[in-house]
Amino acid sequence: MTEPAAPLPAPRLGEPFLLTPGPLTTDFATKEAMLRDWGSWDSDFRAMTRTLCDRLLVLAGDRAGEYACVPMQGSGSFAVEAMLGSLVPKDGKVLVLANGAYGLRAAETLRYLGRAHTVIDKGDYLPPRGAEVAAALDADPAITHVVAIHCETSSGILNPLAEIAEAVHVRGRKLLIDSMSAFGAIPLDVGEIPCAALVSSANKCIEGVPGFGFVIARRDALEAAQGNSHSLALDLHAQWAYMEKTGQWRYTPPTHAVAAFLKALEIHAAEGGVAGRGARYARNRDVMVAGMRGLGFETLLDDRWLSPIIVTFFCPADPAFVFQTFYDLMKARGFIIYPGKLTVVDSFRIGVIGRMDEHVMARVVQAAADALAEMGVESAAPPAAALAERAKLAA
Amino acid sequence: MTEPAAPLPAPRLGEPFLLTPGPLTTDFATKEAMLRDWGSWDSDFRAMTRTLCDRLLVLAGDRAGEYACVPMQGSGSFAVEAMLGSLVPKDGKVLVLANGAYGLRAAETLRYLGRAHTVIDKGDYLPPRGAEVAAALDADPAITHVVAIHCETSSGILNPLAEIAEAVHVRGRKLLIDSMSAFGAIPLDVGEIPCAALVSSANKCIEGVPGFGFVIARRDALEAAQGNSHSLALDLHAQWAYMEKTGQWRYTPPTHAVAAFLKALEIHAAEGGVAGRGARYARNRDVMVAGMRGLGFETLLDDRWLSPIIVTFFCPADPAFVFQTFYDLMKARGFIIYPGKLTVVDSFRIGVIGRMDEHVMARVVQAAADALAEMGVESAAPPAAALAERAKLAA
Repeated sequence: MTEPAAPLPAPRLGEPFLLTPGPLTTDFATKEAMLRDWGSWDSDFRAMTRTLCDRLLVLAGDRAGEYACVPMQGSGSFAVEAMLGSLVPKDGKVLVLANGAYGLRAAETLRYLGRAHTVIDKGDYLPPRGAEVAAALDADPAITHVVAIHCETSSGILNPLAEIAEAVHVRGRKLLIDSMSAFGAIPLDVGEIPCAALVSSANKCIEGVPGFGFVIARRDALEAAQGNSHSLALDLHAQWAYMEKTGQWRYTPPTHAVAAFLKALEIHAAEGGVAGRGARYARNRDVMVAGMRGLGFETLLDDRWLSPIIVTFFCPADPAFVFQTFYDLMKARGFIIYPGKLTVVDSFRIGVIGRMDEHVMARVVQAAADALAEMGVESAAPPAAALAERAKLAA
Repeated sequence: MTEPAAPLPAPRLGEPFLLTPGPLTTDFATKEAMLRDWGSWDSDFRAMTRTLCDRLLVLAGDRAGEYACVPMQGSGSFAVEAMLGSLVPKDGKVLVLANGAYGLRAAETLRYLGRAHTVIDKGDYLPPRGAEVAAALDADPAITHVVAIHCETSSGILNPLAEIAEAVHVRGRKLLIDSMSAFGAIPLDVGEIPCAALVSSANKCIEGVPGFGFVIARRDALEAAQGNSHSLALDLHAQWAYMEKTGQWRYTPPTHAVAAFLKALEIHAAEGGVAGRGARYARNRDVMVAGMRGLGFETLLDDRWLSPIIVTFFCPADPAFVFQTFYDLMKARGFIIYPGKLTVVDSFRIGVIGRMDEHVMARVVQAAADALAEMGVESAAPPAAALAERAKLAA
């Protein structure tokens, strides 16, 4: 883990920082890697694909060569669907652990695929716990797979993956992890968190540009996946088998996004890998959250559950606070923030991932202070309903 | 249509020209448009998406506002699957017109989707003709949709779309056109070629970078498509409805590829649109084919069927000719060519699309001459079996 020697530079073309869960602000060198064209059939590009997969397997801690990395074109949700449709057999049954939009989207995907599934829906943000997973698995022996969301960006909660994985593992079921917005910044070692597969995408904590996702799956799970997929394009087994045989992607890869990702992986390694990246994001979160709390804002989650990825704040009760105006004022100051997703109370989110550091975060807080002043908001305190909502988590 | 004032520049970073059907050589300015980051939720990016769709609808000749443009993340095959899975109802039946890999892939997609279909398979390159389409439709009233490939890059043939469309239209069936490698360079006006939808992708004749495709579909076909899709990610109706409502892509868009595509559309317009682009590609083809024939190479197709997209040549019969060596020698001279896909005789392909002109094509021919000399190939004439194969088309 290396401390950054100097503040990270601002976006060179002057665009706003993206305080969002991806696409995010990337290093200029990452984008510069897109300034040439590659032939997708050529050996140069095949070597790039190989490097990409090899490095991701190292990041995932696959020391025994039991896993393979299968990139998939499209957004992260395409890779999630490829994982679910390919690794869950047609007669499988899935337990989905949901506490936000991404868990619910996994369930919706399974509905499209016609795969049997059941959902533990904890609402907007309450974490699914190991004990309730254990109880659900004990109660239903038909369940073959469990889907868990690592960091649920709907609220910004970091779900308790270790206790979930333990509950699944000891019961002999298979765990599928959506680590979309966590992989690369939060440790996730397949030697410690047993799983059939995990999925993430290029434009999250590795800080690449969007264009593809990737599934890191057990080779035995991939071998068993032939014939499962509902979709030709999203057939993870076919993609893997073709890549093993030819070194190529089955269909046209996003060549420029792949080149950017390789540069992003280099930068990630130079920063100290997962530990270094995670430490910077944690500093970002700590500086930003402390500053926002100093302005009177309150977070949805208490510190134990706050991810170093994205943080949900309650909107102030003060009627002078209008989210769209706040958004526009923040954007005018160089920061693009993110709307909230809570169903019960108004909220917004501020992401802390991407190519930025705590110096930027201090400016985010100052911008928020200025925006409140310009809007005439006297107090950033949330409504009583918000605090009542938050009390549920402590209970 | 404007004649280029000066030769187009070579790739600025010195990489080889891509004589392939995409990814292809793009303008440096197109790639430079990827040097900044965009928030996918932000109004600036929503405006970019809107512009992209509006301009593509103009290119497709949608004067009456009867069509909508729906971009889809992933490669072109993802967009094809989205079109087939969403626009063909579960009780529909599809006639696929195949004369190469892309027609067969459409049939394979339908097999995955469990949609009833029948195939007119003309083999490696023979064109499906209007009369046989008419006969097939008359013989099977259950057929609701016909899938046609505009330019089948397996051979480089430009299929007779007008007579196919006419046969489908007068019989009241719906036409779905895979114009992947033709749209933007070959005229395809929905006012003249009636179709339910056409599909293409960013990294073909518009000369963008890979990352997404797009379906241009009749609005009534999209409205009727709700509930058809086998896939959440590839649900074209859901993508369209969400975009209509919010101006956003449903899931993370390839923001940089979109920005590059907007620049590519500007360059396309400045070149004179479809007419100008098509004229340059036709000059590329004419110079390259004449030169290669001058070296003794023979094309699979006679001139009537040669697309200005990609051209198939027979490999020389001379045993000194080894394709991989030829490939490597061409690459060393700055040109990446493409292997052939014919099943009966050995062949290779040379693409003429992308940011290059007839001056480059003359150098391609010179490079081929040099490569033959270096390999010790005395004659580029194909084997007798190749000429016998070609005679089938004339018959």
